[in-house]
Amino acid sequence: MLGSKEVNFRLVIRALSVLIIIESIFMVLAIPFSLYYGESILPILYSALITAASGGLLFSFVGKKKRKHVGKREAYIIVSLAWIVISLFGTLPFLFSGTFTSFTNAFFETMSGFTTTGSSVLNDIEAVPKGILFWRSLTHWIGGMGIIVLSLAIMPLLGVGGTQLFAAESPGPAPDKLRPTIAGTAKRLWGIYVILTAAETILLMFGGMSLFDALCHAFGTMATGGFSTQNASIAAYGPYIQYIIIIFMFLAGVNFTLHYFMTQAKWRKIAQNEEFKVYALVLVSFTIIISVLVLFSQTGDIEEIFRNSLFQVVSIVTTTGFVTDNYMLWPSFAWFLIFLLMFAGGSAGSTGGGIKIMRHLLLFKTASVQLKKLIHPRAFIPVRYNGKAVKDEIIFSIMAFFLFFVIIFAMGTAAMSAIGLDFKTAIGATISSLGNIGPAIGGVGPTDNFSEIPDVGKWILSFLMILGRLELFTILVFLSPGFWRK
Amino acid sequence: MLGSKEVNFRLVIRALSVLIIIESIFMVLAIPFSLYYGESILPILYSALITAASGGLLFSFVGKKKRKHVGKREAYIIVSLAWIVISLFGTLPFLFSGTFTSFTNAFFETMSGFTTTGSSVLNDIEAVPKGILFWRSLTHWIGGMGIIVLSLAIMPLLGVGGTQLFAAESPGPAPDKLRPTIAGTAKRLWGIYVILTAAETILLMFGGMSLFDALCHAFGTMATGGFSTQNASIAAYGPYIQYIIIIFMFLAGVNFTLHYFMTQAKWRKIAQNEEFKVYALVLVSFTIIISVLVLFSQTGDIEEIFRNSLFQVVSIVTTTGFVTDNYMLWPSFAWFLIFLLMFAGGSAGSTGGGIKIMRHLLLFKTASVQLKKLIHPRAFIPVRYNGKAVKDEIIFSIMAFFLFFVIIFAMGTAAMSAIGLDFKTAIGATISSLGNIGPAIGGVGPTDNFSEIPDVGKWILSFLMILGRLELFTILVFLSPGFWRK
Repeated sequence: MLGSKEVNFRLVIRALSVLIIIESIFMVLAIPFSLYYGESILPILYSALITAASGGLLFSFVGKKKRKHVGKREAYIIVSLAWIVISLFGTLPFLFSGTFTSFTNAFFETMSGFTTTGSSVLNDIEAVPKGILFWRSLTHWIGGMGIIVLSLAIMPLLGVGGTQLFAAESPGPAPDKLRPTIAGTAKRLWGIYVILTAAETILLMFGGMSLFDALCHAFGTMATGGFSTQNASIAAYGPYIQYIIIIFMFLAGVNFTLHYFMTQAKWRKIAQNEEFKVYALVLVSFTIIISVLVLFSQTGDIEEIFRNSLFQVVSIVTTTGFVTDNYMLWPSFAWFLIFLLMFAGGSAGSTGGGIKIMRHLLLFKTASVQLKKLIHPRAFIPVRYNGKAVKDEIIFSIMAFFLFFVIIFAMGTAAMSAIGLDFKTAIGATISSLGNIGPAIGGVGPTDNFSEIPDVGKWILSFLMILGRLELFTILVFLSPGFWRK
Repeated sequence: MLGSKEVNFRLVIRALSVLIIIESIFMVLAIPFSLYYGESILPILYSALITAASGGLLFSFVGKKKRKHVGKREAYIIVSLAWIVISLFGTLPFLFSGTFTSFTNAFFETMSGFTTTGSSVLNDIEAVPKGILFWRSLTHWIGGMGIIVLSLAIMPLLGVGGTQLFAAESPGPAPDKLRPTIAGTAKRLWGIYVILTAAETILLMFGGMSLFDALCHAFGTMATGGFSTQNASIAAYGPYIQYIIIIFMFLAGVNFTLHYFMTQAKWRKIAQNEEFKVYALVLVSFTIIISVLVLFSQTGDIEEIFRNSLFQVVSIVTTTGFVTDNYMLWPSFAWFLIFLLMFAGGSAGSTGGGIKIMRHLLLFKTASVQLKKLIHPRAFIPVRYNGKAVKDEIIFSIMAFFLFFVIIFAMGTAAMSAIGLDFKTAIGATISSLGNIGPAIGGVGPTDNFSEIPDVGKWILSFLMILGRLELFTILVFLSPGFWRK
């Protein structure tokens, strides 16, 4: 069994109550925008008060106690419940403002926000009060903050799906010292996250965006979320803004440890990082192929075609989901490539979701080594990553991740098919949710949204979002009967 | 390097020349049917003579020498080239009879035959001379013979993709003796294959089929091929014949080692075989679900709906590809399940193609063990199969098989998309060819054929057929530059 035999539920509830209180503080941040745009602040105020009160009540219920070690068991429970609980409270502004009358829709939108998916059920985004839209984009940013710490500090300790490798060179004290504290790692990474968000906001404002729009889009970019304040997504803006967003989507899809190395001027470490090289290679090569394909089928400005191709490739690989062009109108092979890229995922330790480049790389290496072993049966050939041999147990956990991803993808698609979605839409909605992307193909393409999906489908997709966002295993362990057995 | 440093090409050529001579003898078997149906025997006679002469010439070129050990290197080359060479000569009857004027079509049909795929480019099967149709079905049967020996005797020695496990209990002398000779194993398994084919032929004749039709369909069934002599496939026949074919498809999809156990009355070994249990469970459960789905959407005879559902489930899982009903007209969830089953594959060591139930089972167990290890970090939990712990190296090779399958499937689908096939057809044609199934979805559904696919697509699909049929690795090793380097 994990850690002690009894789950310390006081510890779990205390952690969740702190998260809920923090959430209420974030909610308050939307109020200035409501005021500025002359909207009622009541929906957000009520939401924040109820959230804060609930968190406070919960906290007082378990009482403040001296610091106690959070075991692995508690960590699984806290992480799994955290996304659910903050999504539940996160629906309040949507419900109180009347943006959604259906709880299902509000929950789908909020879960989509916190999991940095970016799939929307809003039919007219621009009709929604700015304060509410700010909260909507903020859910992305909060989710992104959570993910950076989870993937680089917490999950590696749990050993979930090979996440140890994500954090192998995580920023912390010198390697001769003990494991860096989670809090220390979190502070360094959040610092980078905040700075990048601020930088993007300023650059977007230079392009003519209001502070409101700039912040919302910076949140959506840095969290690889994808919620926009415009119905036309990023197609509503000009080339300058589109290029800025491309750059920051690219940065958000990079392992945040590399950003940390950059602050330390450890250029060699960045240049030698295999995942980063493959990530860049995938983006460049697919952009070139897709640009050429679109160029030969459409008349138009070469720069614009290149920009749209680059934008969509970066947006999909990083699992952001912003849109500048309806790729479903491209030649079918071009959007097929976009569809394939939905299975890529960003870099490990980034805010991007999905399978992740690092896992693909290690799986490919493992398969290649097996092929080599058939040719050289007596040779010992280890799988190497960034120059070091990777342990079998890490390979096994990455394999298991991939297998569960495939199984869940197949089951999700079957479920979507069972509730009546057509083949393309069922596949698209499933990979988009499981990979935390946003737009997909078929009936949930780049210019569609998820409002037409039946309610039961929205719940299934919400479940896929959290499954994918928490690297599958967190939720799978949480749901295993064996986890709860004494 | 594998075995000796130099490839013994004399050995390779001798083996291939013997195969070619054997192929010519099989061709001659079609002549009585040409005579009986009053057709010209010349196309087949010429083909057989040219094939025999080529084989003889090749054989005399390398000369008869005293028996020499065939090393692993030679085995890879012989196996890879065998399917290509016999497919090349196998086109002759089609070309001489004018059944095909395009070499591409003739090669596609022949490769589809020898790989027991059963995808056809014939638009009017019933217009083709019976002798040629007999040869067409015979290619299935020859391919099936080859596969049984390959998968249970030759590939396990090469260690291809976990095939060691296929043959773990292969029929041979008592375990205390040394490894059974390939020839001994082959004879036992071929005996079973011949007996089952004869039994099915007789039972089909009881149902009113002519000897010709009964033999052709028995060949197509036992090889899990799928070529029929009728344009309507098995929909042209009544319930009795359909049930007979269901039973023999089921038997053909079982590991032939279990048939051997049956002849030895080792019932316990059959009952305890995990793959067999899962195979049966998949067939039963999917048949029930699909029957119910079809029942609620169509009016019709319950027995007929059940029979069609059962027939298609067994046909697709065993990768046979016979058809009694156009499943694309079923409710979309029902044919989606049929589509999912295309990724199943028959049992290991059967004539069925695809991923195979055993690999799925072991992959699922491996993933589950990883999940358990997260819950019980200190426990040692091996992956067990039929009561025995499976070595890590076998798991690794099965994983590598799965990864290459996924990669090749993605690349194949992309290639099909690139040459202009729509999404559904591209996916369907690829899995159908790689899994050696036959019919698929979209434009290559159960009532369509592959004639509309552009020529380059037919070559790619032919390549996928041989890749899938030879468990991927045989061809991948053969194509590796490292394999040929000294």
